Amino acid sequence: MFLNGGPMIFTGKAHPDLATRICEYLECNLGRAEFFKFNNDNTFVKILDNVRQRDVFIVQPTTFPVNDNIMEMLIFIDAARRASAGRITAVIPYYSYARTDKKDQPRVPITGRLIADLIHTAGADRVVLVDLHAAQVQGFFSTVVDELTALPLLADYFLKKNLGEIVVVAPDIGSSRRSRDFAARVNAPLAIIEKRRLGNNDRVETLNVIGNVEGKYAILFDDEINTGSTMISAAKILAEHGSKGVYACATHGILPGDAAQKLTAVPNLNEIVITDTVPLEERKRHPKITVVPIAPLVGEAIRRIHEGQSVGALFT
Amino acid sequence: MFLNGGPMIFTGKAHPDLATRICEYLECNLGRAEFFKFNNDNTFVKILDNVRQRDVFIVQPTTFPVNDNIMEMLIFIDAARRASAGRITAVIPYYSYARTDKKDQPRVPITGRLIADLIHTAGADRVVLVDLHAAQVQGFFSTVVDELTALPLLADYFLKKNLGEIVVVAPDIGSSRRSRDFAARVNAPLAIIEKRRLGNNDRVETLNVIGNVEGKYAILFDDEINTGSTMISAAKILAEHGSKGVYACATHGILPGDAAQKLTAVPNLNEIVITDTVPLEERKRHPKITVVPIAPLVGEAIRRIHEGQSVGALFT
Amino acid sequence: MFLNGGPMIFTGKAHPDLATRICEYLECNLGRAEFFKFNNDNTFVKILDNVRQRDVFIVQPTTFPVNDNIMEMLIFIDAARRASAGRITAVIPYYSYARTDKKDQPRVPITGRLIADLIHTAGADRVVLVDLHAAQVQGFFSTVVDELTALPLLADYFLKKNLGEIVVVAPDIGSSRRSRDFAARVNAPLAIIEKRRLGNNDRVETLNVIGNVEGKYAILFDDEINTGSTMISAAKILAEHGSKGVYACATHGILPGDAAQKLTAVPNLNEIVITDTVPLEERKRHPKITVVPIAPLVGEAIRRIHEGQSVGALFT
Amino acid sequence: MFLNGGPMIFTGKAHPDLATRICEYLECNLGRAEFFKFNNDNTFVKILDNVRQRDVFIVQPTTFPVNDNIMEMLIFIDAARRASAGRITAVIPYYSYARTDKKDQPRVPITGRLIADLIHTAGADRVVLVDLHAAQVQGFFSTVVDELTALPLLADYFLKKNLGEIVVVAPDIGSSRRSRDFAARVNAPLAIIEKRRLGNNDRVETLNVIGNVEGKYAILFDDEINTGSTMISAAKILAEHGSKGVYACATHGILPGDAAQKLTAVPNLNEIVITDTVPLEERKRHPKITVVPIAPLVGEAIRRIHEGQSVGALFT
Amino acid sequence: MFLNGGPMIFTGKAHPDLATRICEYLECNLGRAEFFKFNNDNTFVKILDNVRQRDVFIVQPTTFPVNDNIMEMLIFIDAARRASAGRITAVIPYYSYARTDKKDQPRVPITGRLIADLIHTAGADRVVLVDLHAAQVQGFFSTVVDELTALPLLADYFLKKNLGEIVVVAPDIGSSRRSRDFAARVNAPLAIIEKRRLGNNDRVETLNVIGNVEGKYAILFDDEINTGSTMISAAKILAEHGSKGVYACATHGILPGDAAQKLTAVPNLNEIVITDTVPLEERKRHPKITVVPIAPLVGEAIRRIHEGQSVGALFT
Amino acid sequence: MFLNGGPMIFTGKAHPDLATRICEYLECNLGRAEFFKFNNDNTFVKILDNVRQRDVFIVQPTTFPVNDNIMEMLIFIDAARRASAGRITAVIPYYSYARTDKKDQPRVPITGRLIADLIHTAGADRVVLVDLHAAQVQGFFSTVVDELTALPLLADYFLKKNLGEIVVVAPDIGSSRRSRDFAARVNAPLAIIEKRRLGNNDRVETLNVIGNVEGKYAILFDDEINTGSTMISAAKILAEHGSKGVYACATHGILPGDAAQKLTAVPNLNEIVITDTVPLEERKRHPKITVVPIAPLVGEAIRRIHEGQSVGALFT
Repeated sequence: MFLNGGPMIFTGKAHPDLATRICEYLECNLGRAEFFKFNNDNTFVKILDNVRQRDVFIVQPTTFPVNDNIMEMLIFIDAARRASAGRITAVIPYYSYARTDKKDQPRVPITGRLIADLIHTAGADRVVLVDLHAAQVQGFFSTVVDELTALPLLADYFLKKNLGEIVVVAPDIGSSRRSRDFAARVNAPLAIIEKRRLGNNDRVETLNVIGNVEGKYAILFDDEINTGSTMISAAKILAEHGSKGVYACATHGILPGDAAQKLTAVPNLNEIVITDTVPLEERKRHPKITVVPIAPLVGEAIRRIHEGQSVGALFT
Repeated sequence: MFLNGGPMIFTGKAHPDLATRICEYLECNLGRAEFFKFNNDNTFVKILDNVRQRDVFIVQPTTFPVNDNIMEMLIFIDAARRASAGRITAVIPYYSYARTDKKDQPRVPITGRLIADLIHTAGADRVVLVDLHAAQVQGFFSTVVDELTALPLLADYFLKKNLGEIVVVAPDIGSSRRSRDFAARVNAPLAIIEKRRLGNNDRVETLNVIGNVEGKYAILFDDEINTGSTMISAAKILAEHGSKGVYACATHGILPGDAAQKLTAVPNLNEIVITDTVPLEERKRHPKITVVPIAPLVGEAIRRIHEGQSVGALFT
Repeated sequence: MFLNGGPMIFTGKAHPDLATRICEYLECNLGRAEFFKFNNDNTFVKILDNVRQRDVFIVQPTTFPVNDNIMEMLIFIDAARRASAGRITAVIPYYSYARTDKKDQPRVPITGRLIADLIHTAGADRVVLVDLHAAQVQGFFSTVVDELTALPLLADYFLKKNLGEIVVVAPDIGSSRRSRDFAARVNAPLAIIEKRRLGNNDRVETLNVIGNVEGKYAILFDDEINTGSTMISAAKILAEHGSKGVYACATHGILPGDAAQKLTAVPNLNEIVITDTVPLEERKRHPKITVVPIAPLVGEAIRRIHEGQSVGALFT
Repeated sequence: MFLNGGPMIFTGKAHPDLATRICEYLECNLGRAEFFKFNNDNTFVKILDNVRQRDVFIVQPTTFPVNDNIMEMLIFIDAARRASAGRITAVIPYYSYARTDKKDQPRVPITGRLIADLIHTAGADRVVLVDLHAAQVQGFFSTVVDELTALPLLADYFLKKNLGEIVVVAPDIGSSRRSRDFAARVNAPLAIIEKRRLGNNDRVETLNVIGNVEGKYAILFDDEINTGSTMISAAKILAEHGSKGVYACATHGILPGDAAQKLTAVPNLNEIVITDTVPLEERKRHPKITVVPIAPLVGEAIRRIHEGQSVGALFT
Repeated sequence: MFLNGGPMIFTGKAHPDLATRICEYLECNLGRAEFFKFNNDNTFVKILDNVRQRDVFIVQPTTFPVNDNIMEMLIFIDAARRASAGRITAVIPYYSYARTDKKDQPRVPITGRLIADLIHTAGADRVVLVDLHAAQVQGFFSTVVDELTALPLLADYFLKKNLGEIVVVAPDIGSSRRSRDFAARVNAPLAIIEKRRLGNNDRVETLNVIGNVEGKYAILFDDEINTGSTMISAAKILAEHGSKGVYACATHGILPGDAAQKLTAVPNLNEIVITDTVPLEERKRHPKITVVPIAPLVGEAIRRIHEGQSVGALFT
Repeated sequence: MFLNGGPMIFTGKAHPDLATRICEYLECNLGRAEFFKFNNDNTFVKILDNVRQRDVFIVQPTTFPVNDNIMEMLIFIDAARRASAGRITAVIPYYSYARTDKKDQPRVPITGRLIADLIHTAGADRVVLVDLHAAQVQGFFSTVVDELTALPLLADYFLKKNLGEIVVVAPDIGSSRRSRDFAARVNAPLAIIEKRRLGNNDRVETLNVIGNVEGKYAILFDDEINTGSTMISAAKILAEHGSKGVYACATHGILPGDAAQKLTAVPNLNEIVITDTVPLEERKRHPKITVVPIAPLVGEAIRRIHEGQSVGALFT
């Protein structure tokens, strides 16, 4: 299927830094390509290196602007396919539409599946993903999927921190399974925060803490921190329930607008720990935000995929 | 696409009683078909009524023997397709492989997606499902899906029962979201049981009850009760935590072997409430087992699908 | 395939005014839907009217922001398909990626084909397009295409104007066939402007006028006016060749940034005639810009498609 | 497509002995995998060896229980595909649904085609089959097919036996072409037994022997012996027509229930010669039943497929 | 799917007479279309009647020139599909490539399957066929197939003829099943002619008559008579075996070149009975050739398909 | 994907000489295959060399008889696919149906797309084309396309000829872009001939020369010369406009019937320059017809495709 010469890594505009770091890990050069918009707002891609029968990886998380980056990725894949690439892997460290994964009300799309189908149509042979919102999203893909997880990296971070008595807290019912896995990894008990709508007015919500957090450091664990409002409310309610201090931890840190500012301003939120699957703009950096690098994980997966070694073995 | 004459309901061997009850609801005759095995164990299906350009529904939950019933359904669909049916809807009130919905360890299948693809390949245009293990499984289907839920029916049952102070308990972390929805519907607080493996030996597990159950009636809520062992352990631990009495409630009651017997023998398990998406053999019936009929729900959905009315409106 | 009740017209955010005008032509109500972005920049669509087995048309030209509007359209189609629409027609009055229609250099995409495939994958059954950059783009679609043309409308405009001696001028070699058709329709001769790169430096270009324009009104004709720079250069060279005055005419007027301002500032450019396949912002309106409404053409095509009448008959 | 390391052979539960013998022929180890049923009767497969980019062969004849073994094979293929196998070949030495290969009555399926499509959908790249009921079934597969034949092996067996004057007898009109090929190989004349329904009652049948069998040893030849009733009736009628003795020979010996017992009890049926494409349970073994091993044929085909050598050359 | 107005019948150049007769049967007008070749030998088709959402049937047996007629049919289907036909049925009364239906030697195509896939790709929704060479070819089609048979018509012809003592003879091993069915229908015994290659030289063949033909009229029955050489050899060997006289009967009469002349010149070949699925040129007509019209059968099938009535009921 | 051993070149009956010349360029043997028609006019192909996992190229321009050669190519591809070829490239130096590339009138096919789909369906992985009628036709293919161009070869021929003052003339509006590219390559100005229909009678046409040709040698440039009537009319009108002499140049020379004779008889048509993408029969050869060999170009492309080198680099 592909000739020798090692994997070729390309990147679109979504997160070139990450692609560069992956290349550093792999000790290879980033593939050369042009990508820009014509003045009629149409995206254009031109791959500059010969990719015939080569093993091509296109690194593009679906970050802001999301639709634009998805379309650029699809066009990139089309260019690589028509350029006779031997195998094309879309490396999507953050797959945002995974959150639209079911019809929970009438006449809504399942965009997580739609995007998976579009990637397949464009011509990707494989997909590499990191910490999906729900693991079932793997099954949305017709192409072969390798889902990586940053959970061990994040757990190691806290194990080394050695905080004393801790409790892992799911900030939301939907995160309880993921938090349980994290809790088991850091040998801590689990608590869960439940959001409940009150009365007829759907807009008024109350938060319940299920489980015991008193006198412990709480690690709020989730797949992503978006605006941070869930984490902020959680920190507040945890304080009310006697938690000693709170850490927020997630694989993906989206932090649109002034989210980073708001989060870091919460007094009992000691630290926010994320990875760099999503680029963190300079202006959002803050001593309370710790970024665990994801490039070694993704880079190692690419190496194993290229060489036919087990990727699962990375996590066992 | 289809001529007049109303929907035509067919059934394989998995659960003919349910198909009959759906026909009663719809006030139509069950479509005539033969299905049997040749002595070389090959399944054969012959549809006896003309189905050209008709709106055909094939009712077949994936119950024991599971693979056999799936294959029979696929062959039924093929027969209907080649007989020029106008539209074919697979009505699968229990879709068991939904439980194999992700690669959570290396080199395992995602059978929930595979079966969805097989149903599409065989020629079904649409699928009707009831209370999937995870709602994301909807997105496994290329064909259009209507997922129905028995949750309102089951909640109504308990609301009418008027048990006094109750708590809804998720018997497992994975059921916490579903239990929360049920809790909201019956206006009760939520507790969650967490299973945790201890030490290096994966075989030893401990159960934690997260949340307060003392002095309340606990309703354990899940999508399915299989062997019932989860429910039995949960009832035991709830007793230890001071629960007044326990009810087990789920849409699907599989109850293989002596499961019904074991469940009904648990002293503080007051009642098991399920629907008949899966047939309950005569020998398993017991005064403590209540079966809420699903045919009116599925029948109404079929009527609406056939007539182009909103199915979602059923649940709002 | 679809029940009675007439066509249902929906629109995304790209050009709601056009959809409204089409509904006025068809004397029907615009279908109700919500479409917005979550704060993680993910597009969400919810169709509010029941569309089961109905004949659905989604009006969405691929205007600024192009990728975003394409994704919104695909998500809209997915929502309609999963909501059991009987037939889905994507009405795309301006299909911008038609300009990326071939590999004229190594390792570039054919995005015009890619988007056609994505629309098919999302679930559209049919497509309605207006004046493609190249008619061959019809063949990029697996789905059935109806390409409409505004050429007769635009020719009628100039015939009524009765300018005296005119010449139709293709502003570019690539527009010569289209201009010839327009010239035949307005009974005028044809001239062509050829752009030629000079020497080794690709950046220096010279324009040649092939044909006679002296003492005549020149109508520059094209499928689209983008930044207008081609039209501006053409007007200049036509003045040098003795043209009495110049009109610029095209189906699609993109006019990004200050393009409208620059175009209307050209002294010998008497008038710019376009249609409203692309929305013209208030700030770009100018007495020299004439907009011929496209809604009657698109509306009539939708009526004919819905009722099974010939669309081609519209143009003969 | 696949890296070095030789073919990897896997087996489901249908016929592990055969897979083991194929591995012995190929001097390789059987690939390690787990396959079992959960207590809800759902099949689960886990491949234990890394198969990335390897050339994988899954050996699974569709024997009792047929539907179950087919589903297990499809799930096995899905697991291998999602585990990034380089190429997947389904080795199906007995493909039972080949018998349902046409619509010879209204509204019946063509299951032989359906299963072929399911295998393709699950993700097999190639299929290896042995002596299909009708060679046309090759054309049911979209994937590439290598059909092997045991006919030379079986003919050699009888040529070595040197029975004297023999006649090859097709036990059924449908087997006449196959029997002719066998007859040509063993240099014997051909006779054919015709089953004819009498009068209006379809249930009463009469057998005619077309051709001369008197004083000769008759070799009944077919693709498979199922219950053996055709062979038993044939042996009886051949006795009536003066045959000296009868041999029954077929590639596939199904022999459900007490079929082996009944067959071996027929006095003038001297021997039953089959291969082991289908496992023969210990209790069915009998001195009159000869089993010709198929593993060398299938093993050699796998070796040639893996190494890119001609498989057809095996039979010329 | 299709609006009212009855079926629309179109024909290419292969057999317009047959399409005309079908229209006479259906009391409708033949759909208007142009089909011709440009001088670069490219086929062009233009449908003149509006076919939007109509039920379109394209009648085109694959007769001389075969490839040309197949391509014309595919282009016709494409034109109808792009013209928004509601449903397209390819009516192929003679499907010649059905004879290339298996890989019986290395590296040959299965053209019968290939053409079936091409028809599907071009856009046909359904296919109507008459007396395939092997019924399994039905399973080559992804589209829905209705296979009609002229066997009852041909049997009736001979039953009315009342020839006295007859025997049905399969002219070839491969026709034995079909001949058996015919024999059952005319209440006659069956004989079979076996062709056997002698020695090492494959070119020398000998014919054996299996079964008794002495003193009887022999009806040679097959799906098609091509050059007639098989029938001529069969007639000769039947004469040697004492047959009183011979009739040749088949659904399809190809008769290329001087085949009709040679066949009718055989003294003991009393009559050749065929249908007009293939056009019989004027010059080939002869008193010994009887043509049974197929239009009522095909026309009735089209009527039933259009109206949603059972086609199978035609044959029971 | 494919094992070593170099590319394997096969040819059908369309243009075996070209395939032979390509093999000479590549210094390899032509792959052995049989292709012929049965007497029922069905095409049969048998590949004689083992092609398992090899890199197969099938050379077949779509020349007279066009449909027949296309079908033969599709059947060839099917044979190669079923014979387990590693990769199949259809090398189609002349792709005639590219001319039917849009719906420019109601209810006509887009045959250029249809054939592209058929080639994909038959199983080709890649396509190599030369100078398409419109470059957009690349986008009709789902398979990967390499379009080669003879333009540099043809331009070199004229540059070496050193004719003095020349003008490149597009013989038709549709060829103006291609002629412009040629003009740029030979550093000559451009003129364009426009065909215009007069009055109501579509049959009467007039030709206009747009641009200056007086006193210059005119090189008429096009993708193909079919009957040559366009070139003959152009030569005549160019003479009237004072051209010194005319050369006709195109990649593909079809020249059906007596076209070559008529063209060479035009007095002021000094030379006709074509390539051998289409075979030129012996009887058509003439001193005024120059044939530039295409085999080195196609051969070099095949070499590069096989070895994973850039094909685009050939043209830069």
